[in-house]
Amino acid sequence: MRRHLALSLAYLGTGYHGFQVQQNALTVTQVVQDAIAAVVGSREEIKGCSRTDAGVHALAYCVSFFTDSRIPCEKLPLALNAHLPQDVRVFAAREVPEGFHARYSCISKAYLYRIRNAPTDSPFSREVCWRVWPRLALEPMQRAAALLCGCHDFSSFMAAGSSIEAQGGSTVRTVHSFTVQQQGSEFRLFVEADGYLYHMVRIMAGTLVEVGAGRMESEQIPRILTACDRGAAGPTAPAKGLALARVRYDDFTIDGEENL
Amino acid sequence: MRRHLALSLAYLGTGYHGFQVQQNALTVTQVVQDAIAAVVGSREEIKGCSRTDAGVHALAYCVSFFTDSRIPCEKLPLALNAHLPQDVRVFAAREVPEGFHARYSCISKAYLYRIRNAPTDSPFSREVCWRVWPRLALEPMQRAAALLCGCHDFSSFMAAGSSIEAQGGSTVRTVHSFTVQQQGSEFRLFVEADGYLYHMVRIMAGTLVEVGAGRMESEQIPRILTACDRGAAGPTAPAKGLALARVRYDDFTIDGEENL
Repeated sequence: MRRHLALSLAYLGTGYHGFQVQQNALTVTQVVQDAIAAVVGSREEIKGCSRTDAGVHALAYCVSFFTDSRIPCEKLPLALNAHLPQDVRVFAAREVPEGFHARYSCISKAYLYRIRNAPTDSPFSREVCWRVWPRLALEPMQRAAALLCGCHDFSSFMAAGSSIEAQGGSTVRTVHSFTVQQQGSEFRLFVEADGYLYHMVRIMAGTLVEVGAGRMESEQIPRILTACDRGAAGPTAPAKGLALARVRYDDFTIDGEENL
Repeated sequence: MRRHLALSLAYLGTGYHGFQVQQNALTVTQVVQDAIAAVVGSREEIKGCSRTDAGVHALAYCVSFFTDSRIPCEKLPLALNAHLPQDVRVFAAREVPEGFHARYSCISKAYLYRIRNAPTDSPFSREVCWRVWPRLALEPMQRAAALLCGCHDFSSFMAAGSSIEAQGGSTVRTVHSFTVQQQGSEFRLFVEADGYLYHMVRIMAGTLVEVGAGRMESEQIPRILTACDRGAAGPTAPAKGLALARVRYDDFTIDGEENL
């Protein structure tokens, strides 16, 4: 009996060139496919929920694959983790309908962007935070984030050179929520949307930092959106501060908060 | 003019065999002395506030040394960090009186012990948390921690084979506070004392986990203390969950909370 399985996983992206298989670069897809091959005895193609950039992390990620293996779902995480590098961990496995697709069945995804606002990196967060100095002002960043919520054409927040075709034919997305919280020297940006353009979260994070540093005004956000011009927004924030944090499907949600 | 300087630093202990210089093993002392030599032009002996075990971390740490260098204190962190590995960072430098000693002038030290209570490690905390499963009960651990507060003979919480001489001639210490907080799947033990016996925090953490798992009762703590017998307490928790978190002196405090 061929089964369709979905895995919940998390990975520290520092050592990987993103999720998708690439020539001559280690990706998360490769190590997950290798572990599945070792456990179920055959190499299966896997579908990932997102094509994360090199260096981007996942607190929550979904992959799906078909297999003839009869190993019970509850035994798969331990078995797979024994064959995975320690910076990739599987938390759960579940059977999904034949038509399920980790990427296209996804209803919404949420990203966390972590900023360390301090003169010096911390040895404890240097791989997962973008360090920014001087001091950022929280409230203008919160106002800017609120103005990015809703259904908009986000072309201004799409990497220059990306084609609309590669973005599914439209540059319109709906941002369901976008919050900015401060805990001591750390700013946490949390954004949930039905989908994202290429580099969209990193450009939004870079723009919010401009606002927090006083180099842009939160009131400019509506004009940046209507400009539909990448040059109107702020710079692209580095990959290492970004982590996929929550992935929602009709029947289940993978929430990575516990892995932070 | 010979000056006496104190540095505030933080380090991820994973790659080091503790703080003190050892033959054939990389220690934090070595890399800090190398950086100081590179910046001030002469190799100076440094005094550290604590002899942390291999693999133990420091969110806050103090070292002191004498130098003829005239580099202003505010320029030292950036200069030293340029010569330090990224898992060791200097945050501040200040001039201290000639008689200051990073270890003996210290009034109190606080440690953080992090426990991940989950069936699977997180790639994001595996170097700084001890993973424990099954589920721990918070309240009994909080009661046990409260019973460890105060002035006691902590011999039962001293590594077997340690000599009283090596502990400064006494096994009596005063625990000023000991709290246990839970944030989702993470338990944070925070203990502040005037001093510690060898492995004392790790044995207290191991004992609290026994209590949280229901294998010991919090009510046993007073009897464990009066037994003055290492065999009466729980096992020694692993080094990787432990971090020196705060160091107090008469004139200043180094608090590592911002580096978490």
